[in-house]
Amino acid sequence: MSASPDALRQSPLYRVLHALARGEVGSEALTAACLDAIAADAGLNAWSHVDADAALAAARASDARRAQGQPLGRLDGVPVAVSDLFDVAGMPTAVGLPGAAPVASEDAHVVARLRGAGAVILGKTAVDEAGFGASGRNPHAGDIANPAHPGRLAGGSSGGAAAALAAGHAAAALAGDTLGGARIPAAFCGLVALKPSFAELSCRGLAAGLRRLDTPGLIVRAVQDAGLLLPVLQGYDAADPRSRKRRVPLAPPDWTPGQLKAGVVADLDVLGVDPDVIAGFEAVMARVAPVFGSALPVAMDVAPLDVAATRRAALLLMEAELLATYGERLDQASAPLRGLLAFAARRSAVDYAAANHRLDEHIVRVRELFERFDVLLLPTVASAPPAADVAEPRNLADLTALASLAGCPALQLPLPGGLGLQLVGEPGSDLRLLELGGIIASVADTGE
Amino acid sequence: MSASPDALRQSPLYRVLHALARGEVGSEALTAACLDAIAADAGLNAWSHVDADAALAAARASDARRAQGQPLGRLDGVPVAVSDLFDVAGMPTAVGLPGAAPVASEDAHVVARLRGAGAVILGKTAVDEAGFGASGRNPHAGDIANPAHPGRLAGGSSGGAAAALAAGHAAAALAGDTLGGARIPAAFCGLVALKPSFAELSCRGLAAGLRRLDTPGLIVRAVQDAGLLLPVLQGYDAADPRSRKRRVPLAPPDWTPGQLKAGVVADLDVLGVDPDVIAGFEAVMARVAPVFGSALPVAMDVAPLDVAATRRAALLLMEAELLATYGERLDQASAPLRGLLAFAARRSAVDYAAANHRLDEHIVRVRELFERFDVLLLPTVASAPPAADVAEPRNLADLTALASLAGCPALQLPLPGGLGLQLVGEPGSDLRLLELGGIIASVADTGE
Repeated sequence: MSASPDALRQSPLYRVLHALARGEVGSEALTAACLDAIAADAGLNAWSHVDADAALAAARASDARRAQGQPLGRLDGVPVAVSDLFDVAGMPTAVGLPGAAPVASEDAHVVARLRGAGAVILGKTAVDEAGFGASGRNPHAGDIANPAHPGRLAGGSSGGAAAALAAGHAAAALAGDTLGGARIPAAFCGLVALKPSFAELSCRGLAAGLRRLDTPGLIVRAVQDAGLLLPVLQGYDAADPRSRKRRVPLAPPDWTPGQLKAGVVADLDVLGVDPDVIAGFEAVMARVAPVFGSALPVAMDVAPLDVAATRRAALLLMEAELLATYGERLDQASAPLRGLLAFAARRSAVDYAAANHRLDEHIVRVRELFERFDVLLLPTVASAPPAADVAEPRNLADLTALASLAGCPALQLPLPGGLGLQLVGEPGSDLRLLELGGIIASVADTGE
Repeated sequence: MSASPDALRQSPLYRVLHALARGEVGSEALTAACLDAIAADAGLNAWSHVDADAALAAARASDARRAQGQPLGRLDGVPVAVSDLFDVAGMPTAVGLPGAAPVASEDAHVVARLRGAGAVILGKTAVDEAGFGASGRNPHAGDIANPAHPGRLAGGSSGGAAAALAAGHAAAALAGDTLGGARIPAAFCGLVALKPSFAELSCRGLAAGLRRLDTPGLIVRAVQDAGLLLPVLQGYDAADPRSRKRRVPLAPPDWTPGQLKAGVVADLDVLGVDPDVIAGFEAVMARVAPVFGSALPVAMDVAPLDVAATRRAALLLMEAELLATYGERLDQASAPLRGLLAFAARRSAVDYAAANHRLDEHIVRVRELFERFDVLLLPTVASAPPAADVAEPRNLADLTALASLAGCPALQLPLPGGLGLQLVGEPGSDLRLLELGGIIASVADTGE
């Protein structure tokens, strides 16, 4: 029995793993099919760097291991995309900035984990300028096109990772998620994304967005793909100051649907969410409600959290962090980005401390929410993917920021039209979100 | 059998607990003896606020509970001092600043824990201006005198707590410790102090020094007193954004002396430590070495960590946090403090982000140390308690900052002459430090 590499490159990771393990396809053939598709789709601007030779060599090495019955790990031979926010040894880390990019001498921690499990690194995918943005626009490398919705943008900041996956260039992608950078492009491109609990995955070798929020994220085609990758990536890393040696395992998904308290965000109009998005979300909620058995989801308002204002406070911190991290490399940034950063450079250390306090308060308020609820359900994005030739709305990350600012895990499920359904749990409940998300995807016809 | 309240008010907490439990003394008599001593020692400037009526009422209530055989908790009837860095319901939180101080409506989390265990809150002890300093000087309320070393200062920032304990005003004291604020005055006043692992104790209701470093600290007369208090105080607090719900218990003190790898700081001269302090420290180390059996302590250098520079980076963050926290209350601060803060106010958000990066790097470097060692031994202070009429040295907190900046627990043991021996472990090893500290105190004759 054999499987078509061209079909497999567009299949969920779990299907690819089966095909490789059963010998239905070889890693070299699959990797070659991915590389061909990448070359054919150059117009998407999804990739910032591809190393075809290294990928094919790694794929051949994987096939040799499989032939000897000695695969390296559970991902042996799987072609993956890595957002340019991460260091990959021997490749430039451009982070969407122009000019000479430094070539990384070491893999980011999560990249090393992927490689250690046998994954084939195809190359690096495009991001917004300096990884700062949610649209997928890049004035230097070109905007990232949305393969699922022609004429639209892919979203960002890890837009290239989502575009590459939507176009069938890889079996899974590593993205960054500070305020929604994995979930937003996944929603726009019709994919699944997981932003894990803060500090579960190491940020070593991940370009700084804002260290108190940054986490690697996953973009995949199916919920269970995220469940396959998470255990490969997680763990203590002494070199990440926020990684904890005294870790407790992620809570087991020990929930009974009828006893799970789900909160459904009800005041979406107050948050400026598009009426079409609200209608679609409510329709999905009606289909999903039976999952929760007799414990019907409870309507709840989140406007009192004022996430938008806290997100703006976080932007000041991010801008200061970019300036402290990249220094002179920002001299060649676009005029709009330089303008934003110049504004941040004039803010004082006291403004920074006050913004930090605001983020602290958000954590406490979201904890209060989770004293009443086990899971929150809300849309991932407030509007459909932005058109390439129109300015995007300013609230692109408001719905994803709620979880980010509180360190919560969040799972994005695709809805028709480039929209998304988001499940948010308290820190450590990642596995519960994945199990619940799998069930919801099956009943809600989320397009996954 | 009865015990003299005047002798007990100068005894270790464990002795006071025994006396109260056995009925050798009543809480009212003990509390009255403490209040008398506080009044007699007003010249120490150790207290910023005392509520004798409330304390005596609480003591009588405790005696009534004991008479009925129903004590509230393990600290029932114990008179304690609380640093003015903490909120105590109904008392002003002056934090060493002049002008009208806000009266707290709620107890700080750790104060509520003490009260819930039955402790009698005598009042609040003096601190450096804005809690910012390590000397015990306060231009508004008067410098805090050192009862153990007349003519010398008590140290700070929680200098009043140490002075009160050294003078026999209370059985234990709650202090704050951002960069050494509990350990430094404890050393100068001949007491034991514990700075727990970061985020083990809630900081709700503790005046902000620097939130990424702040932790409540304990000042006591004996190592085992700290072991009695720690379980009363620790635990998750949803209202402290850095407190973790997913906590793992502190590691049990499961060490075998002969297998413990102790690192002894050897390059004290490079760090600017006084020759007398070095000589005293080396003499103690010679007496302590047999504790470690065949695994002799290893000499190690810490100058490469450049703690002093990282501590200075932290000072910028602290100054910005003070400005963001206290605002107009700082208008009446002393000219020197206003000068420092004005300097910080001119620093940019980018400077703040860069200083944050420096603190991150320190965490990673100290983790590398703890891959080679289980415990570090070093002096607590670099010189004897400063004379009241001479400017103090600028490196007062350099030796305590090493642990603070990395979130490590640190135990201060008293040495003769107002000096201290410090044990530092990796985060979570608090109980091991206490057990080891108890043994070291018994063989080293630390004066405890």
